[in-house]
Amino acid sequence: MTKEIAVLGAGSWGSVLAGILDENGSNVKLWSYNKDQVKELNEQHTNSKYIKDYTFSKSIKATNDLGEAIEDVDYILFVVPTQVTRSVARQVSAILKERHQWVNIIHASKGIEEKTYSRLSQVLAQEIAPENRKSISVLSGPSQAEDVVTKDITLVTVASDNQKAAKEIQSLFMNHYFRVYTSDDVIGVEIGAALKNIIALGAGALYGLGYKDNAKAALITRGLAEISRLGTSFGANPLTFIGLSGVGDLIVTATSSNSRNWRAGNELGRGESLDQVIKNMGMVIEGIATTRAAYQLSKQRGVEMPITSAIYHVLYDGADIKETINQLMTREGRSEIE
Amino acid sequence: MTKEIAVLGAGSWGSVLAGILDENGSNVKLWSYNKDQVKELNEQHTNSKYIKDYTFSKSIKATNDLGEAIEDVDYILFVVPTQVTRSVARQVSAILKERHQWVNIIHASKGIEEKTYSRLSQVLAQEIAPENRKSISVLSGPSQAEDVVTKDITLVTVASDNQKAAKEIQSLFMNHYFRVYTSDDVIGVEIGAALKNIIALGAGALYGLGYKDNAKAALITRGLAEISRLGTSFGANPLTFIGLSGVGDLIVTATSSNSRNWRAGNELGRGESLDQVIKNMGMVIEGIATTRAAYQLSKQRGVEMPITSAIYHVLYDGADIKETINQLMTREGRSEIE
Repeated sequence: MTKEIAVLGAGSWGSVLAGILDENGSNVKLWSYNKDQVKELNEQHTNSKYIKDYTFSKSIKATNDLGEAIEDVDYILFVVPTQVTRSVARQVSAILKERHQWVNIIHASKGIEEKTYSRLSQVLAQEIAPENRKSISVLSGPSQAEDVVTKDITLVTVASDNQKAAKEIQSLFMNHYFRVYTSDDVIGVEIGAALKNIIALGAGALYGLGYKDNAKAALITRGLAEISRLGTSFGANPLTFIGLSGVGDLIVTATSSNSRNWRAGNELGRGESLDQVIKNMGMVIEGIATTRAAYQLSKQRGVEMPITSAIYHVLYDGADIKETINQLMTREGRSEIE
Repeated sequence: MTKEIAVLGAGSWGSVLAGILDENGSNVKLWSYNKDQVKELNEQHTNSKYIKDYTFSKSIKATNDLGEAIEDVDYILFVVPTQVTRSVARQVSAILKERHQWVNIIHASKGIEEKTYSRLSQVLAQEIAPENRKSISVLSGPSQAEDVVTKDITLVTVASDNQKAAKEIQSLFMNHYFRVYTSDDVIGVEIGAALKNIIALGAGALYGLGYKDNAKAALITRGLAEISRLGTSFGANPLTFIGLSGVGDLIVTATSSNSRNWRAGNELGRGESLDQVIKNMGMVIEGIATTRAAYQLSKQRGVEMPITSAIYHVLYDGADIKETINQLMTREGRSEIE
């Protein structure tokens, strides 16, 4: 049966996901707060600020009206920026409540809420009442939007608190270039997706300092080990971090100069000040706030995260990068799994 | 106490490891079957065929004489090519037996013996009698030799059947640019190190076909998942594959055009025939034999390895690459961890 799906957020990833759902046969409405963008999507079927040189299917309806977007839908897919997810969810919740709708919730954003250190499925569960939601799921993995529009092979994971919903979401998205795996580990998938940006910053910094492939692989691997330690302290399955939302996404983010976080780290490594880097980038560098969140969480939970701590001290305490790396390298020897 | 160490094999990795051990204060003898190389190492302190523009310490003694190399040593480190490890071990064993020596054995080679599908620690255990060996260990990780000589940060794992030996080996190698972690998972470390070359071939082929970052990350991640399945069927710890000898080494090997296996895959992806690729490369492409070994092992053990099987059919049965990728992508949806 054809599904009705609302995609909230028409940035590059939201609009590309809307395109896949439409191509696979669902009825898709794409919501954006930006009126010009909605007009462009409906009239020219392009989204030129976010996806260059790409024409969307005419069957995708864009709208500014949240109530219209989510009317009679089976699924609501949140792809708005992490820090506004709560406020959009609150508006959605009020409408669902009034209409007594009962829907499946998915999100495909990557981050931790700054003030509460909450994962996004927690934010959604807090804001949308249980009687209005059948399931909460997260879709994540190594998926640069610009590669998906050229039909590069892309593999992602959908983790859900409801495996029936996970399987249905899998079939909604899957096609010959976009393959979806299911998982029951929402916590692990969300933590991997959010914390990768810390390691991307670090990988950029090492590159900026002149380090090479061995150092890059070492940082990614040991970074993943500490992300996994934090995740398992919250109940995540350690094997999730070997998966698409863990090592997979980390490979794309921490080895690609397309990554904003990698580029910011690179400038820091070359000796720019943090203030200057933030100014140069002109956009939010998510890894900076995520580093603080992860650092605080590691302290609260007594989880050792030496790389995150080192990056935290460089970013927030003005620690010298080279001296910090030297301290990391001259710690007492360890066993690899602990 | 200063340790006496024989390093067998003066290729790039063997001679670089000899250099680190010497720098850290051990007495090192470096054995090679090649007389000209031994002469060059002893007279000019260079190894120009394997390590360009690098001068070794004068305190490293090179020799052609295996008996002299292993005389009174505490450690023998095998860094000879995988397929000759057994014959060198047999010669070493005869000498140890005659002299009633009792030594620690380490190896730092990556591969599976072609005829027996044995791991190298198995080969060493078969050839060197229990009364001549205190321990068998393997040193592995993301460690391009050319980066180590420039003191790039390098992290490796030493896995051993004897944790006292593992800790001692850790301290022999560790310094401010070379950091060593211990592990008790010899099987996992060896399988990760050997099978990464299959994925490097595949990653090169995807690149040659024009696929991008999402596809690369997807291949590495799902490749790792199937290597991990095969490894755990032999008793490996699945978490080893998230470590330095697993994902770490895979990142270096499968994302670097320095890798011979990656380059061979790239030529295949561009449409060259296997025979032509082998001719062009002019050296052994280990991933080709390793693909066959892993394919046969997966059949013997009933472990599903779709990527390895696909590469096997392309290499050995003349399957069409694009059709094979299409088959992989259109299989039924799965859960990520199974």
